[in-house]
This record gives sequence, structure tokens and C-alpha cells, in this order.
Amino acid sequence: MYYYKQELINEIKTDRPDPAAAKVLQETLGGQFGEMRTMMQYFFQSSNFRGKQTQYRDLIRGVFLEEISHVELVQNTINQLLNGSGEPGVGNSGSDGAPLDEAIKHANPHHFIMGAQSSLPVDAGGNPWNGSWVYNHGNLIADLLNNLILESTGVLQKTRIYEMSSNQTMRETLAFLIVRDNAHQNAFAKALETLGVDWAKLFPVPNYDINKYPECRKYVELGYHNAQFNFRLDHTRIAEVFQGESPSRNEGNLFVSEPPKGFPVPEMPEMPNEHSPGLGDMNR
Amino acid sequence: MYYYKQELINEIKTDRPDPAAAKVLQETLGGQFGEMRTMMQYFFQSSNFRGKQTQYRDLIRGVFLEEISHVELVQNTINQLLNGSGEPGVGNSGSDGAPLDEAIKHANPHHFIMGAQSSLPVDAGGNPWNGSWVYNHGNLIADLLNNLILESTGVLQKTRIYEMSSNQTMRETLAFLIVRDNAHQNAFAKALETLGVDWAKLFPVPNYDINKYPECRKYVELGYHNAQFNFRLDHTRIAEVFQGESPSRNEGNLFVSEPPKGFPVPEMPEMPNEHSPGLGDMNR
Amino acid sequence: MYYYKQELINEIKTDRPDPAAAKVLQETLGGQFGEMRTMMQYFFQSSNFRGKQTQYRDLIRGVFLEEISHVELVQNTINQLLNGSGEPGVGNSGSDGAPLDEAIKHANPHHFIMGAQSSLPVDAGGNPWNGSWVYNHGNLIADLLNNLILESTGVLQKTRIYEMSSNQTMRETLAFLIVRDNAHQNAFAKALETLGVDWAKLFPVPNYDINKYPECRKYVELGYHNAQFNFRLDHTRIAEVFQGESPSRNEGNLFVSEPPKGFPVPEMPEMPNEHSPGLGDMNR
Amino acid sequence: MYYYKQELINEIKTDRPDPAAAKVLQETLGGQFGEMRTMMQYFFQSSNFRGKQTQYRDLIRGVFLEEISHVELVQNTINQLLNGSGEPGVGNSGSDGAPLDEAIKHANPHHFIMGAQSSLPVDAGGNPWNGSWVYNHGNLIADLLNNLILESTGVLQKTRIYEMSSNQTMRETLAFLIVRDNAHQNAFAKALETLGVDWAKLFPVPNYDINKYPECRKYVELGYHNAQFNFRLDHTRIAEVFQGESPSRNEGNLFVSEPPKGFPVPEMPEMPNEHSPGLGDMNR
Amino acid sequence: MYYYKQELINEIKTDRPDPAAAKVLQETLGGQFGEMRTMMQYFFQSSNFRGKQTQYRDLIRGVFLEEISHVELVQNTINQLLNGSGEPGVGNSGSDGAPLDEAIKHANPHHFIMGAQSSLPVDAGGNPWNGSWVYNHGNLIADLLNNLILESTGVLQKTRIYEMSSNQTMRETLAFLIVRDNAHQNAFAKALETLGVDWAKLFPVPNYDINKYPECRKYVELGYHNAQFNFRLDHTRIAEVFQGESPSRNEGNLFVSEPPKGFPVPEMPEMPNEHSPGLGDMNR
Amino acid sequence: MYYYKQELINEIKTDRPDPAAAKVLQETLGGQFGEMRTMMQYFFQSSNFRGKQTQYRDLIRGVFLEEISHVELVQNTINQLLNGSGEPGVGNSGSDGAPLDEAIKHANPHHFIMGAQSSLPVDAGGNPWNGSWVYNHGNLIADLLNNLILESTGVLQKTRIYEMSSNQTMRETLAFLIVRDNAHQNAFAKALETLGVDWAKLFPVPNYDINKYPECRKYVELGYHNAQFNFRLDHTRIAEVFQGESPSRNEGNLFVSEPPKGFPVPEMPEMPNEHSPGLGDMNR
Repeated sequence: MYYYKQELINEIKTDRPDPAAAKVLQETLGGQFGEMRTMMQYFFQSSNFRGKQTQYRDLIRGVFLEEISHVELVQNTINQLLNGSGEPGVGNSGSDGAPLDEAIKHANPHHFIMGAQSSLPVDAGGNPWNGSWVYNHGNLIADLLNNLILESTGVLQKTRIYEMSSNQTMRETLAFLIVRDNAHQNAFAKALETLGVDWAKLFPVPNYDINKYPECRKYVELGYHNAQFNFRLDHTRIAEVFQGESPSRNEGNLFVSEPPKGFPVPEMPEMPNEHSPGLGDMNR
Repeated sequence: MYYYKQELINEIKTDRPDPAAAKVLQETLGGQFGEMRTMMQYFFQSSNFRGKQTQYRDLIRGVFLEEISHVELVQNTINQLLNGSGEPGVGNSGSDGAPLDEAIKHANPHHFIMGAQSSLPVDAGGNPWNGSWVYNHGNLIADLLNNLILESTGVLQKTRIYEMSSNQTMRETLAFLIVRDNAHQNAFAKALETLGVDWAKLFPVPNYDINKYPECRKYVELGYHNAQFNFRLDHTRIAEVFQGESPSRNEGNLFVSEPPKGFPVPEMPEMPNEHSPGLGDMNR
Repeated sequence: MYYYKQELINEIKTDRPDPAAAKVLQETLGGQFGEMRTMMQYFFQSSNFRGKQTQYRDLIRGVFLEEISHVELVQNTINQLLNGSGEPGVGNSGSDGAPLDEAIKHANPHHFIMGAQSSLPVDAGGNPWNGSWVYNHGNLIADLLNNLILESTGVLQKTRIYEMSSNQTMRETLAFLIVRDNAHQNAFAKALETLGVDWAKLFPVPNYDINKYPECRKYVELGYHNAQFNFRLDHTRIAEVFQGESPSRNEGNLFVSEPPKGFPVPEMPEMPNEHSPGLGDMNR
Repeated sequence: MYYYKQELINEIKTDRPDPAAAKVLQETLGGQFGEMRTMMQYFFQSSNFRGKQTQYRDLIRGVFLEEISHVELVQNTINQLLNGSGEPGVGNSGSDGAPLDEAIKHANPHHFIMGAQSSLPVDAGGNPWNGSWVYNHGNLIADLLNNLILESTGVLQKTRIYEMSSNQTMRETLAFLIVRDNAHQNAFAKALETLGVDWAKLFPVPNYDINKYPECRKYVELGYHNAQFNFRLDHTRIAEVFQGESPSRNEGNLFVSEPPKGFPVPEMPEMPNEHSPGLGDMNR
Repeated sequence: MYYYKQELINEIKTDRPDPAAAKVLQETLGGQFGEMRTMMQYFFQSSNFRGKQTQYRDLIRGVFLEEISHVELVQNTINQLLNGSGEPGVGNSGSDGAPLDEAIKHANPHHFIMGAQSSLPVDAGGNPWNGSWVYNHGNLIADLLNNLILESTGVLQKTRIYEMSSNQTMRETLAFLIVRDNAHQNAFAKALETLGVDWAKLFPVPNYDINKYPECRKYVELGYHNAQFNFRLDHTRIAEVFQGESPSRNEGNLFVSEPPKGFPVPEMPEMPNEHSPGLGDMNR
Repeated sequence: MYYYKQELINEIKTDRPDPAAAKVLQETLGGQFGEMRTMMQYFFQSSNFRGKQTQYRDLIRGVFLEEISHVELVQNTINQLLNGSGEPGVGNSGSDGAPLDEAIKHANPHHFIMGAQSSLPVDAGGNPWNGSWVYNHGNLIADLLNNLILESTGVLQKTRIYEMSSNQTMRETLAFLIVRDNAHQNAFAKALETLGVDWAKLFPVPNYDINKYPECRKYVELGYHNAQFNFRLDHTRIAEVFQGESPSRNEGNLFVSEPPKGFPVPEMPEMPNEHSPGLGDMNR
């Protein structure tokens, strides 16, 4: 069973509304290599695990638990980017007497029609999240290799989306997730290392210069690229795998740690043009 | 952030392997009105909530938290139904020297090709779960009405799937979920009652005779149709809405309670024909 | 605007329940070359027509109007095939104390889970109808050629589905539609003939022997393969195109006629196992 | 069977070409909560109806018949918005020697590639219409509740699209449909009222101020929010349900009436850049 | 079995980067009527051919073989249009310190997130290529008619995309393919002519004036509209069908010829912002 | 450009018709990890390659070329399994006077409705092939890792499908492809080895005992698990990577070789019940 404390796993930085950035950041939420995919893939792999070597199941489940918080973080980031983008006097909006005309320019129009300027379970092209993306064939080596390429593609895509806008709301969240995805690369690379593989200098993928993504630095200094946050309220065998020297080019030892202290969930104001929540005086 | 204790929200009854039942039960996991849909719909509605009347957000989030456990329960139920269905000497299997030939009869063949006789994020027809099913328009009345019809359809479908096999593994899980979906109907019906609606005798939908589904009785006797389990580790305003007389034909008062005591997660054996987990002597 | 009289365009023959036949007949309703496709394709082509040669638009619209009745006819045929298939004592049903267990054998399980033993907008494989199938590029020659191949494929598929069961409910409806699709082949072939094409003996496609489908004979004797039923309440230019010698191997002249006398719509009984309609004593 | 008179159910106002508005208005035609969905959902519910209380079937079928005209109205509105948007000298077009370069800016490129500047069965994001959206579970309460939320979401989305452009071609059609969707909310809310529900002040959803949508006023003054147009050529029991006091906050009594007098269907000119219809001198 | 020589079937002209043109040209690669569809449709028709009249199979297979080269040609054209579009100082890029911000304007964002500024198997709207588009019903007349409308739609769409940008990289490739699609129209029209059809002046579709597409002229002068390139290393019966007078309005005789002399495949530079190929000093 | 010789890459063994086996073998043709996916993925990776280290591009392209032949081999295998399954007197067919009633039992009904008892671009569940499956992010390490997991999943699925029927037509083709997929695992594993990785005993995946799949033995004895067939008519750098000791547990050295001698393509007879090819006396 699953328990919850209303805290975000990282901070939401404030910056200007930016619906074009919100549109591309959807890839990180509802895309084929986004956080909903990682969350659901590891959920199915955990529940469907076969055999007695449950240290690997506990590793996969441990990452799953964090991914739920990642989904929540990206939802809140997209909301912040959308919030206020369709009100008169903000950005290009309100020209032509049409407060939501932003939606017909560079935005995903469904952010304004289906969502009340809020996140959706879709990718950057507007395609809905799809269950066929979940890889869980039950062969542990195949599953671990797929997880490794999933986390690698996650970082790769995030470094590319990072270059699409200088908006700090978007970049801060991406930077945190890039470092965390590196930790998850380490988790699955380490699991395969226990089966004999030597990765040499292959990871992290992509082979990036951290100075290109300055927001990442503080998370690296906190050791987040080598940490696995533990969200279990009971015993877990995760540390039997996630320990020892990092399997990547980066220095350091892997360690299981407490989750970060939580950050407040931003409150979203009422949005009259969207009739959201639209209770009026019906309930006081 | 989300925390976990490795316990199921209800018991998995044991019965014979039954891949045909597993195939139709997938509707309850990955179908348009299944548990993945309710989980994700309430997740997005919680994170995207606008305005200060957060008692409604806390209600929606409260149901969301339970739905994660429902997904886990149905995954484990399907696994139990599939487990052993493809080994020689079990049921029709093994005839013709083809241990997995069950997959080409009444089963979903992907349960044997993609899964290692385990659950998938698809519906009873094999269609993958789809993000476009998530309804979250941000207008609270519209969202609550949609949640109500979602829970009603959930019960309706479960009563129909119940009639498709007398397998106890399947029926026990369905019975528990029917009663819980009734509680969730009550949650959303009550929320709309606070906005003035009087439902008369409309709920529960469908208007069923509990004697037709005898496995439901014990859960009703525990009051599970009027309870909301609380998985929050911090404060929640849920009881501001979920309290007072039931909005349905059924007697009683709504109350917030502790989650059920947990049940053990069944262990799944190795499955050599599926190469799962397939480590052999690679890791000792 | 569209007007309605509650009459079917052809008779529904009664025969035994046959959910396996219902499953494959869905191709004719919701498949890529089924009646929903023809209806919607001609609807869009009619509304989007460009230029002054509106005799072609009126031809296309005339076929569109009939296709709405074809959709209704196939819905009712599928309902007749499903009706009663899930009650105790009918066919294999009810074995094992599970009245709807038919759904996990040769049926489309959604016919029992989503529909109350009734038709769905899906094809024989359970794939939902899809708007991308509508062909309407606005170039009249391309559109007419596509309509011709659409009607040809319609007949071809129906002759194949005809061979899948000897059930008279299914075969009678297919026979009527085979002959009508031949008339529609004639309509579009004739339209292209007015632009200079000589089809020689190419049509009808496929080149079938009517004795193989004896139910077709009476419709041919009524001249239905050369008639275009007229559902317009105002003037139409359709007869400027649909007239003169048939463009196909079959004898005769094309003619515009009144629609057939209508046939009664079968009444569907309540279905308690499906909770349909499920009002109980709520409404007297 | 279905009959037709070539008249639109409302007027098409003329304004400038506006392919960006055409793109978002597609949601109202081919979106998950658009007119194709309502049309098809009520079609299936009518044909699949079970039991003797056919006053409800006649109500659903009555709304279905009007929805066919709504589809036709939105097709024509989109055509008007697209028409002429790709010719030299109009708007931004023709710059760069590329007459259709509008298609690569804010338009749906398929409006120029697949359609000859005309409507498509897709939503605002370009996703094709999908049969899985049709809700028809055969339980009358569930079906009516789903219809109610469908009509509510229809209004909600239309008020949001209304704000995306001040184009009068788009806004007039939206205003008419907003008022008609309110009438359909009343139809399904009333049907549930006959089963005992008291809606208090919940409807219409959303709770909008009519002064925000001034084009709506004349339709309200005509009583269109309380009327059900009757397109039946034979007897219907619709007035057994659709009568008496409105179930919504708005004043007045429900009444069944004749359809509006029809409006002319705009003629669409030839479009040489699109080769539409492209007959040239082939047919005189 | 299939053999390869690294040469393109036509030249890639160089012009400025143009990601908006790349986005719409995707229709010609991965769209419903694009080169991947023609390639796969003819592949399945060739392999699934029934009966002894293999001259038709060899005709279809002959076109299939050329289509593989067409796919490769369009991939390379899209790459050329994308290449360099996301580097500082090119076009609008680099403003705002975000080198890939082009992706959030008029481009397909997946060209920058999933591809490293390179082609994708999707259409102009970003929808992935879909196997249901392949038409292969095994009835030779139906298959040939469908091929004919497929090639006609191919030309029609290409003439429309041609008008969307004056970019020479895009237009040269389109012009070559327009002429080749005309040859393929001739191939399938001729095949139906051998079965008796007289096409009069129906083809080519659309009925275009070659002066509108000046890049086409040189290919017509080379006779490419009447030629079938032969990629077989063994005997083929194709010339039994593809010979004699053209079935179209255009003059000349059909003839089987050698493939064009090949053209060099452009080399694509490394793209550091995309981490492509991203080997760094890992491999010398 | 691509050249062709009408020869299959392996032999088609004859056995009884088996439409249920044909249905599941579709996974190997049109499934997410089937031959169409590998073919298209390597096609896009070859054409979109960046940078000067073209030995990797030539390796990927080399595998691509073979995959075209694999697609053709599986198409022909499925055809052989379907051929004759719907004629009277074969298997269960013809009972009930319905020659194609096999299609409504354990078969994919589209094999009889859409195909004339021939292969389709769909998977074992009937879902069409989808372009979103193609992985080509342009980062060479990510692409190679994905290729490796794709080939591993290919073998894994084939060993599972192998167990679903003892039909020799199916098993022989699977056995050949299992060994070839192992060679392709070696290709991509070796490419990553050149970047420093040491795979220890991880491959082949899955870790199978060759005695379980006796048909594989002769291909292993031919060294097919260590060979790369070369289909280039010009120079290729493939042997710069594909050489030296195998990166897998299996013994031996990698070597580039001639393709196998070709095998005849089976001729498919006319199929009157399917109207295929259906020319009758139209063409002599």
C-alpha cells in the first residue's frame, strides 16, 4: 500500500508564463521516455517479478516509488509554465479581444481546451501516453537493459529540451531530473555489473559536460547522482545491489539515503476564463 | 512524495490457473474504466487543482492514493490466474508437445509473449492503456460528475466480468473492488451533494442485489462501502466532505478510517519456459 | 437537416444467438471498409464539395443518406446475434455457474463488458473506428476512385464474412448489403464514366457467382443492384449522373427510386445479467 | 431510415479567413467531446436500447437526429474559416512565392494536404476521431449520466474555444451550439429527474455569465435553451420526458418544437492550388 | 534477398535549413499516402500474391523495389532541411540563449527531441506511420485500383506540399517524386487496361500544368514519367505489362529501363547540442 | 539503391495449415519487437547517421539489409500456415456449411477478411505496426544499446512463440531467426565492446539450452550465430567492427560472409472463397 505526504521532491522555480515551453516539457511527463513511462514500467516489473533474488525487485521498486514523485514534479512545473499565459495583458495574450488566443499560436491547444491551463498525460506532439510503451518481459537481463536505455534516453531528451527555452521554471526541474536519471542509470548499470558486465566509460549517457547545464551542479554536489532515495516504510534489500563504486565515469560510491526534505506544492489560483474551478457562490 | 509498505490491500484467493479469466480481468486493470484510469485521472486532478476549496482536492487525492493499491491488487490477481497455465500437465497445456499452446486458444497471446505469464497495461481486448481516457477539465463540477460515472461504470463492468468465470481468485478481487467502487461513488456523490444535489435512490449504480455477488457481503459488513481509507501521513481535509449520511440507497454514515491491515504479496516462482527471470547460475 | 422514420431498410431474419458471428460482423459496422466509414466519408465529401458541378455532390450525398440506414441495419443485426447469448441454458452459456462465460471463448469480450450484448463502433479485431480512414482530398477524380474501391472492398469483405457462419440473421443482412454495395459501385463507376472512362467488364468487384450467395437473388430480382434510393425531401441532381446503362457486366439500366418500404425495428428485452436498462422499480 | 433537406440548422456568418481558428474549432467537430462523438454516441444508444421504457430511447434518438445537423454546421463553419486562406494576397499567404505556406505556420497542415482547405474528422491537435469515445453500456442511468457530462464538457470546451479568436464565423456557430448543448443538458438532466434526482443549481455547467458570450443572447431569447427540436416523421414519446420545469437554474419550461427554419449551405469555389475539384474541361 | 549500393536515386539540392518545410515533408515519408506506405503495401502484395499470372506480381514488386529508394531519398531530404536549424546564428535560433528554441515554434518538436535533427517515421501532423494503411486484400483488381488511387493521392499531396515553401531542397525532391508517381500511376493504370479498362483522359491525377512545377520538366524530358526502373538481378515479367502506349493523356510509350545513375549520399556533421553521435574521445 | 533476386533467405518447411500458429507468428512480423521493427529501425539509423565513424553506420546498415529478407521470410511462413485453412475438408473448416468458419474460432479474423489467407502488418493481438516503435535518437551509444535490447527481445519472444505449436513450418523459421538474432546481438554487443564494454557472460539473451530448440542446431553448426551476411554491392566498413572474438558466451570468431544460397519462394494457389486473385476469364 502507498502513503503520501503533500511535499514535492524538488523546488518549483518561478519565472514568466511560457506555454511553448510547457508544450515541449510534456515529453518529460507523458512521452515515450517520460516519467509516466518510467513509473509504470517499474510498477509492472515490481509486481510481476519472478524468483527469489528479490534484491533486484526491491531495486526496481525503489526507483518506481521515486518516479511517482517525478510525475508530480513535472505536472507542477508544467502548471507553473501555463499559469497566467491566457489572461489579458500577459505576453501576446488578449490581443484581438481573445484572451486565450495564445492557444492557437505556439501552444498545445489542449492545454487550454481540455486542461484549465494545466498538465495533460500527453507528449510534446500531443500524443496521449500509451501502455504499449511499458517494457516488462520478465527476463531480468532484458528488463534491466531496457530500464538502462530508458533512463539514458530520459537524460538525452532532457538535455535537448533544456536547450529549447531559457525559462528557469523549466530548466531547474530538468536539471534535477537529469541528475536523478543519472542515479537511476547507475542503479540499473550496477545491477548488470553484479551479473558480470564491466561498463568501462560508457555511462552516463549522453556524455555531457556539466558546465553546459549549470543548474545541475548543486545536485551533483549533494551527491544526488550516486544516491538512491528510500521511500519504503518496511525492509528493502535494495542496498545489496545499490552499493560500492559507481559503474559510471563519475566518481564516488553509491549509497541509499533518506528522501530530500520536501518542498511546498504551489497553489494554483482560480482561472475564470477557463471556468476553473467554476463553483462561484455555489459552495462557500 | 509517496511511501510504500509491501502489503496488498486485500487477500489473493487461490484457485486453478485460468488464462481466459486473466484475459477479461485485464479490463479492470488497463481498460478505459479500469484501475489505471482511476489512478491516473485522480492523480492529474489532484495536481492540477485550482482554487482554495482544497477539501475537494483532498477528497480526490485520497481516492487516488487507494487506487495505486488497487492497481497492485489486480496485477497480482492476474498473475495468480496466469501462473502455471503454460506448464505441461496443467489444463489443456502441453498437448502437442507445445507447453505454451494455451496462448493460441482462449488467452491473450501477449500474456505469454510479452509478459512472462503476468499482467500487462492493456484491456480485455488487448488494447493498450491510453492517456486520452484521463478526464481533467479543471471545472470541479464536470470533474466530479465524470469521476462519479467512472466509478459507476467500474462497478457495472465488474459485475459483468464476475459472471464470466466462477474462478475464486478472480471473483474475490472483483467483489472487494465492487464494494470499494461503491464507496468511491459515495465520495463523489457526496461532494456533489455539498453543492446542492439530492440523488434520491439513484446510487449505487448498477442497482444490484448483493445476494448475486455473495463474496461482497463480508466487505459490506465491515462497512467498506461507506469508508474512505486514509493513506495520508500529514493532514487532510477529506473528512469535511466525506462525512454524514450516505448519499446512496444503502444505509449508514460515511467515515474516514485506517487502511485495512495488509495482506502478503504472493511470490511468483521461476518460469523456465518463459526464461523468467532467466539468471541461471549467473548470479548466486 | 436530417429527418427520421423508425423503420429499418431491410428485414432482420431470426436465427440462433451467435456471438462469434457477431464478432466478425463488426467489421461491416466499424471496420476500415465498413458502413460507418462509408457513411462518414460521403458525409465529409458532401459538405466539403467545391465547384458548380453539384450533380456529383448530390450523387455522393445520396449514397451517404442511405449509409446511415445501413449502419442502423448492421447495429440491429449484431444485436440480434448477441441477444440471449449470455443467458443460462443457451448454447454453451451458463456452464460453470458463469452466465456470461461465452465472452471468454469465441466472442469479443467487450460485447459483454462495454455493451449489454449489443453492437460497438469497432471492427472484427476489436479495434475502434478511426477518423483517419475517411478519404476526402477534394479532388473529385481521386475522391470518386477512392469511393469505388471502398465499395468494392465492402463487397469483397462481405462475401468473405458470409462464409464464416451459416447463421441466417447474419447472411440475410450481408446479402442485402452486397447487392446495395454493387449499386454504389455502379454509382461511382458511372460518375467516372461521365468523365470518359470505359470500365469494360471490370465490375462488379469481386467477380462472384450469385448462386454462391442465394440470399442475394431476390434483391437482384428487385433491381436493387441498379437502383439508387432517394432520401431527399427536396430537389437533387443525382439522376443527371445515375441514369442510362449500367457500367458493370450486369444487365440493366440505372434508375432512381423510392426507398424500400420500411421494416420493423426489433425490440430488445431487458437483460438482468448486464443490468440493462437496470431501472428496476425506480421508474414506473 | 433517414431523410434530408439541404438546409443548415443555423447561419454561417462571414468574416476573414482564419486557419488558426479552423484548427482549434476542429475540437468541436472531431474531438473527444465534439459533435461527431455526440452524434455517434446517441446513435448507438438508440439502436442498442433495451426494455419497454422507450420514452428514454426516443429522447436520446431525438438529440441524435439534431447532432447530425450540428456536425454539418461545424463542417461548414470550418470550411468558411479555411476558404481563401491559401491564396496569394490573403493574410500572410503568398509570401516567398509559396501560396500555401500558411499551412506551415499556425494551421493544421492536413487542412491543406489532405483536405482542400476543408474540414477533417480530427480534433484540435490533429488526432483522428476514435470510436472508443462512444459510451454505451446499456445501463440507462450510467448512459444518461455520461450523456450529461458529455454535453457539459461540450459547453465548457466551446466557451474556452470562443476566447481563442474574435472571428465572427467561429463565434456565431459556437454561440448557437453552446445554447443547444444547454438544451441537451436539460434533456438528460430532466430524464434523471424523472428517476428522482433533484439537481438544485448545478446546471448549466459551466456556470457562465451570458454577457460574456453576447452572440448567445438571441438564441436564449428564442427559448432555444429549453427547446427540443423534433426531426421525427413519425410518432415519438419524447415529450413524456422533455416537458415541465427546466431542471437548471435558468427559468422556463421545456418544450418540443419544430426545427428552426433552414439556412442556405454556402457554396465553396474551386481552389486551383489544391486541384479541387480539378475537373478542368474534362466534363462540360 | 535484397542488395544495396550506397547511392541515392536522385540529387539532394542544397538550400537554407528549413525545419517548417521538414515538418510538412514528413507527410511524404511517413504519411498515410507517403513513401513508407507505398513501399510496404507493394511489399505485402508481392509476397502474398496468389495464382499464376505473375506478370502482375512482378510489376508490383518492381515498383516496391524503387519505393525503398524513395524512402531513402525523402529521409535524406528531410535531414538536409533540418541540418543546422538548431545552431546559434542560424535563422531564429539561438535567441534567448536557447539553441534549440526553433523546436518550439513552427517545427515538429520531435525532430529535435527524438531525432537528432533528422527524419522520423511520422506524418506532417506528427502521427506515427501505421500498418493499417497497407491495403492488400488479395483480389487483384481491388489491389490494383487501390494502388492507382494511392499513387494519385501521392502526386496530389506532393503538388500541395510543393506550394508550402520555395525551398529548393524540398522542391527538387518533390518534383522528382511527382514524375515518378506519374510513372507508377501509368503502371497500375496499364495493368487495369490489360483487363479491359479504357481510361480516356482521366490520368494523370491531378490534372496539373507542368509549368507550375518547373523542376519537373527535366525529368519529363528524360522520359521518367513513362519509364519503369528495373532493380531485379534476375528475370522479371514486368515488361509483359509495362509496355505499349501510355494509358494517360501524356504522350509516349512505356519502357523498362536501367535505374538512374546514383547520386552521393550527403554526409551529416556531428551535432553537439543533440549529443549526436556523442562518442567524444571514447573511440578513436 | 536496392536490388533484388527472388530467393528466400531460408527454407519454408511444409506442414499442416495452422491459422492459430499464423496468428501468434504475426508478432514476429508486425509486432513491437518483430522483423518490420528491426528493418525500419536500422533503416532510419543508417540514413540519419551523423559523423565520420561510418564503420558503425555500415554495421547497422548491414543488419538492415538482412532484415528485409527476414520480413519476406516471415510473410511467406505465415502464408504457408494459413494456406488451405479455410477450405472444406481441412481441419475444422467447412462444418456448418461455412468454409471460412475457422476465422471465428482461434484465428485472427483479419487473416480471412482483409488478407486472402495471407500475412498482415500486425502483431499477435491484431494491433497494426506502429512507427513510434522505431528508436533512432542519433546518440550512437543509446542507439546501439536499444538495438541490442531489440535483438535480445526478438530472441526471447521467438523462444516463447516456439512453444506455442509443434508445427514445423513455424518452428523452422523461428529456429533460423533465433540464430540470426543471436548474430545481431553479437554485432551490437561487439560495437559496444569497441567502446570499452566487457559483457562477461551476459549474452546471448535469453540464456537458453540449444537442445530445447533442436532445429537451431544445424544453423549453429554452419556458424550462423557468428556470421554477418553481406548484401552490399559496393564497399563497406562493417568488418572493422564485426571481427575478432565473439562478445558472447558462445565460442568462435565473428566473420563477414556471403549470404546463404537462396531458397525458392513457394507459389500460392488461387483461393476462390477469398476471390483471390479473382480474375476469372478476364485475362488469359
